[in-house]
This record gives sequence, C-alpha cells and structure tokens, in this order.
Amino acid sequence: MEAERLLIKGAKALVGTHPAGTERLAGAALAELPQLEHGWLMAEDGIITAMGTDADWPGVADWNGLEVIDATDRYVLPGWCDAHTHTVFAAPREGEFVDRIKGLGYAEIAAKGGGILNSAAKLRAMDEDDLYVQAKARVEELMRQGTVALEIKSGYGLSAESELKMLRVVQRLKEALPLRIRATLLAAHALPPEYKENRGRYVDLIVHELIPQVAAEGLADHVDCFCETNYFTVAEMERILEAGAKHGLPGKVHVNQFTSIGGIAAAVKHRALSVDHLEVMEPADFDALRGSGVIPTLLPSCSFFLGIPYGPARQLINAGLPLALASDYNPGTTPSGNMNLVVALGCIKLRLLPGEAINAATLNGAAAMGLAAEVGSLAVGKRASFIITKAVPSLAYLPYAFGQDHIDTVIIDGRTIRAGEAAA
Amino acid sequence: MEAERLLIKGAKALVGTHPAGTERLAGAALAELPQLEHGWLMAEDGIITAMGTDADWPGVADWNGLEVIDATDRYVLPGWCDAHTHTVFAAPREGEFVDRIKGLGYAEIAAKGGGILNSAAKLRAMDEDDLYVQAKARVEELMRQGTVALEIKSGYGLSAESELKMLRVVQRLKEALPLRIRATLLAAHALPPEYKENRGRYVDLIVHELIPQVAAEGLADHVDCFCETNYFTVAEMERILEAGAKHGLPGKVHVNQFTSIGGIAAAVKHRALSVDHLEVMEPADFDALRGSGVIPTLLPSCSFFLGIPYGPARQLINAGLPLALASDYNPGTTPSGNMNLVVALGCIKLRLLPGEAINAATLNGAAAMGLAAEVGSLAVGKRASFIITKAVPSLAYLPYAFGQDHIDTVIIDGRTIRAGEAAA
Repeated sequence: MEAERLLIKGAKALVGTHPAGTERLAGAALAELPQLEHGWLMAEDGIITAMGTDADWPGVADWNGLEVIDATDRYVLPGWCDAHTHTVFAAPREGEFVDRIKGLGYAEIAAKGGGILNSAAKLRAMDEDDLYVQAKARVEELMRQGTVALEIKSGYGLSAESELKMLRVVQRLKEALPLRIRATLLAAHALPPEYKENRGRYVDLIVHELIPQVAAEGLADHVDCFCETNYFTVAEMERILEAGAKHGLPGKVHVNQFTSIGGIAAAVKHRALSVDHLEVMEPADFDALRGSGVIPTLLPSCSFFLGIPYGPARQLINAGLPLALASDYNPGTTPSGNMNLVVALGCIKLRLLPGEAINAATLNGAAAMGLAAEVGSLAVGKRASFIITKAVPSLAYLPYAFGQDHIDTVIIDGRTIRAGEAAA
Repeated sequence: MEAERLLIKGAKALVGTHPAGTERLAGAALAELPQLEHGWLMAEDGIITAMGTDADWPGVADWNGLEVIDATDRYVLPGWCDAHTHTVFAAPREGEFVDRIKGLGYAEIAAKGGGILNSAAKLRAMDEDDLYVQAKARVEELMRQGTVALEIKSGYGLSAESELKMLRVVQRLKEALPLRIRATLLAAHALPPEYKENRGRYVDLIVHELIPQVAAEGLADHVDCFCETNYFTVAEMERILEAGAKHGLPGKVHVNQFTSIGGIAAAVKHRALSVDHLEVMEPADFDALRGSGVIPTLLPSCSFFLGIPYGPARQLINAGLPLALASDYNPGTTPSGNMNLVVALGCIKLRLLPGEAINAATLNGAAAMGLAAEVGSLAVGKRASFIITKAVPSLAYLPYAFGQDHIDTVIIDGRTIRAGEAAA
C-alpha cells in the first residue's frame, strides 16, 4: 500500500510544539505552550515528519496522493490525552442522578444497590460482545471530541472472570480503533459483596492471580486501586502496587478523593505513574509528591458533577509539580468524557491559564499514561494525531466559550476521524 | 405556495404536552411534564395541527408533499425558550477571562476599561451591518442548539444612537430568522462615562426619549434595568418601569445578582414580566414575589462561569412560585447561550428534577417573554418548533450526560433548521 501523506498548511498556529524530548511540564513551565504561527505540518504513515512556518516552507516535491488540509484561521492542537477513565461499563446510571437530586446521599444510593456495585452487577450479566459494542460507540464519540489517547480501567467486574472480560473488551478496542489506549486493572475498585467477611482473600486474588495473569496475557498496562476510607486501605493498595511493579505494570491510583489517609506517600514509595483525584489534600501529601516524578492528575468534571471540592491545581503548580487533567468518564460520578469541557473546567474552576490547561490535557496527560514519546505535543516523530479548530479568535476563546463545539476536524494517526470545513 | 406539511411519527414520547391554556407552571406543578408515549404530531404551515399516540393514529389522507420524520427511539421536546440574553455584542472578551484567572476582580477589570463599558466602546465603534452579521451567526448557532425563542437586550450602546442601533439589529434578526425573538431596551445597563456627574440626565434620556421612541417605532417589546449596588438604584429602575408600562413595554429586570436592595418588590409593584438573576435573595424578596405573577428567572451559566452563588431554585419552588431558566448569553459573564447546558446546570447545580428543568427552559421561559401562547409546549395551535433528540435511554439522560450533544434534529416553525438522522 502506498504511503499515506498529509499536509496541513496555513494554520493560524501549530500549538504545543514542545522541544523534542520534553516529557512532562511541572511548576511554572506548565504555562509554556510553544507555538509556530502561520504553520505547516507534514505527516507520513501517521507520523509527523516535518513542521515549520510559512517563511521556511520548503515546498512539496511530489503532490501525488498528498492529502492537503487548509487550516487558515484555525489552530492545530495535539489531540487530548485522557489518562483516567472508566469508559467500559454496562449501562448509564441516570436514575441515581435523579435520586441524588432528590436528596439521597452516596451511602444511601449504595445501600439501594447503586454505586459501583450496581455497575458491577449489570456488567457481570452482560455479554462481552454487547459490552464491546457499547464501549466502542462511546470511544468513537470521544475521538470525535478530540481524544487521541485514552486510559480505560476495569473495575466493574470485581471477579476474576468479569475483570478479565472488561480487559478483553479494552484489548479489542485497542485493536479496532486508531487512538492509543492504555488498559488498567482496577479490580480493587470496590469490595465484592461475596468477600465482605474476608477482604484479604479478594486482595490475594488480585495479587496472586489477576495481576500475574493480565501481565502474562498483555491485557493490562497499569494497576489501580481505589484507596479511600470504606474502600481499600493504604496497606491493601501497597500490596497491589508491589505486585503490579513486579509484573511491569506501574500504578495509577485513586487517592484523596474524600479523605487523606496516606495513599499519596505510599504511591510515591512504589513509584506509581500517577496519583489521581486529589480533591482533599493535606500539606504532607504535597511534601510526598515533591521530587517524586509521580504525576498528580485532577478530574474537574467529577468535582463539577458531584459538587465536591475541585483539586488544588494552583497549589500543585506552585509546589513545582506537574499536573495532568483527565475526564474520569464513568456512569456514576462523571457521565462525560468530553475533554474540551475538562479543559474549560480547568480554566473556569481550577483557574488554570488556557495554556496550562491545554498542556495538562495533552503532554502531561500523555505522560500520565507513559505515552509522552508518542502523543501529547506536535513534534517530528510523534503520531500525527491532532485537533483542527474552527476559526476562533484566540486559544483563550476555547475554554472561555465553554458551551460551543470548537472542533472542526480530528486526525488520528494521519487518518481523518471527523471531517469539518478544513478537511472538506 | 403549497401548504408545508410535516408528520413526525413513532416518537418515543412527545414531551411537554401541557393542556391547552397552561401559561406557566409554579410550585409543585413545575415537576409535571406530560408526555404522549409512542406519539405522532402533524404540522401545517409551521403550526401544530394534531397530535396523538400510535393507538389513535387516524392515518393520512394525502401523503403528497408531506415531509415525514421517523422519530423512533427519540424524544420530541418543545424547543428551548431563552428569556434573557445579550446576544448582540461587538466582540468576545476572553482577555478579561484570562485577567480574572490571573486574579483580577470585577472592579479591577472595569477599572482597566473592561466590563460592560468595554463592550460599549467596541459596540459604539462598530457598523450596524457588522454587528448584524456577527449576531446572526450567533443566533443561528443557538438555533442549532435547539433554541426556538430568544430574548435579546440592548445595553452595550449606552447612548440613544447606539442603543437604537442595537435594537435595529435585533429587528433585522427578527425579520431574517424563523425563531421568535423579543427585543428589550436595556439602556440602563451601566452608566455611560459621560453622565458620571449627572446620572439623572441619563435616566431622563431613557424615560423621556428612548422609551417613547422605541415604543413608537416598535423596536422593543420590553424594558430592562440593571438594578444593583453601583449600577442603577431602585428609584431609577422604578422610573424606567413606569415609563415602559406607560408605553406598553413590560419590564424584565436584572435584580439581586450581588446584593438585595429592594429591586424585586419594586418590580412587582410595577407589574414586571420577570425578575432575573436572584443569586442573592432575602426572605422579603420571596415575600414580595408570592402571588405577584412575576416570573423569577435564574441564570445558572452565569453562576457557573463567574463562580458566584446559584439562584435558590428549590426555595422558589417551595414558595409556590414559577421559575424560568435562561442563558444570560453575553461576552463578559456568560459566554454561552447553549440552553442544553443550562438545563444540565439546572439539574446538576440547582438540583432541579429533569422535568422541572425542562419546563423552566420551555413553557416558563416562553411565559417570561410573553410568548406562552405560541411556544414552550407541544400543543395544537402552537408553533411547530421543537427538538428531536438522538436515541437516548431516558429524559433524565439529557442533563446527566452533560458533555454530549443530544440533539439530532431541530425544527422551527415547521422548517428543518438542523437535520440529523431522523430527518435524513
């Protein structure tokens, strides 16, 4: 097959052209969003091969078979890298949403058979193919919203069989779709009812059976644990992180959503890739993160939807730390994977500058999945996966005009996923 | 020209089929959202002529020239009626958004030449045709988002000449576009700098010149006043409401956004149509509204964007009052007119039930513009202006899945404004 070649020309700016080798942005550097104004970009077989500005345009020797996109008045952004989602699930849970409006609390909803265990019951009953078809439609919608790299967790199976079923669905999504997907084993999402009297045995199952098996079969890239009061203890999370590390699966963990119980220091100790949520942070949690390389990942859509506090974005930046933004897409607490809204919430609610929010949702999101060498910025050698905006007056306009769809075209690995006016 | 005839068949439900003559919904009745399941709807020349369920389908005698839309698995909703917007403006103000993230306050931004006076300076300098072209593009986007009736205020002119220019733009929008538009004279939006030492003369200008002239020329349907500490006093608003009433222009006023200074009682006294904002409410304000017929209108997108308190939706309902939701679309404090998000915010932040939020954004929004006889519900004799959703599992799914676009098709006055799969 002939090489697929793509030229984007005349862009108002190529955005996020970080120097080669930039792996993550921390502290003040998070605000640095380099741009090539009046830019062009060449890609071949899904990889960026050259970039520049109109002034240094070398011309094209062979126009034959070259797809040309005129991006005049439009920005080209690296696509969103969403490092924390639960996109495989059996059914939405809008009934619980209504229950919550009526005044029921998280605990009452769980007592009614809601919450994670509700999702688990439905997922266990659902055929793998049905799960796959639903999840695929969801991920295709995310791709149209500009997501080019996506982490997806298990965690609604809560048995060896059903957790593996979820990870096989993720595996099929990886094979079927052009975006980059990372799979995370989150068997420790909630304690299955059948282990209520013997929680140690469930953690044993994860540590001694599930982690070795998913590692051997290549079904997961990461391990996760919901380390929280009434869910899993710090000691239980440590066992899981240790087993993950032993099998080459670095941790990405849920910590500090409702309480600060020492999960961050433990995650740092076990060299987790990211610590996610962080709505409740104590000074010791910031201290633990300093110099650790672990990426704090905030999920503002979850705070928005639940009405819980937003994560301390400015404090993390002021502490010199990196920061990623992710969606937390899941049917219970964040029924949206729209990263454009996550970026808007990053500015409107976390008070990030537009450049900080874009970096946090691209390069740092990629880093939080171990994918910074492939996606997250516009650089020669990286994947040709990006968003071309509609004609907008400035980058700040994207989060500012929060109710509009600013995306014209989405390209993933050089393929047009959503064609707007620019690609017409 | 032949009559334009439209049949929508097989809908999952026709939603908001309130009994003929229902003009507004107050208190507990706000939650009543009647539906015809498995419904069909006929329209002729832009007016709904018949509705029913599959069980009572009478058939069609003449299929010739009949446009048929298959709404299987889809809801048909009355289109959004947005009763409070500032959609005519000269330029977005994302620079101020960034200034606010950097920590500047409302007053500092105003001191830098920002805020309403910034919008006024730009609008005064802009040609009427340019203003019209920009505003038309904005309203067309709102129509694609499902808005079928829209109030638009002046208020960035702040001189007789420029306020009239804004209202002429609204007049041209009324003539050019199929949705229902109501124009509101908001000359009392901010005190023009040139009247700083003589505020009484500006109010004189509004009362003695502008109101009589716009009434005589049919350029406005309503009058408005930003009654707020540091803007206009209650006494000044009363002069404006009195003059408006005398000329047949009922009031729709900005009150209680930052402080409670008696504006609501004054608006009730002068039989205003609606009191809008209400983020800060005292018990006396609720007392003033009881039995008044005035429609409290909340603007949750403004609260969301500015981070100010949300209006007391549940308290208004518990007080037996009606409640409308509107967007407040404007470049400074609410750069979005997306009513789908307003409804989502109504549920997520104001804790309205989905049915309450839909009624507040349709029938009660229509009532807050004096248009309840024409739009706001699905009823024989009303305009054939509605939204056909994508295939969604329930009505509650619409605000729950807040990051998705749920609209498939938009019809206004029987004309397809946005064609999705149903209309294909």
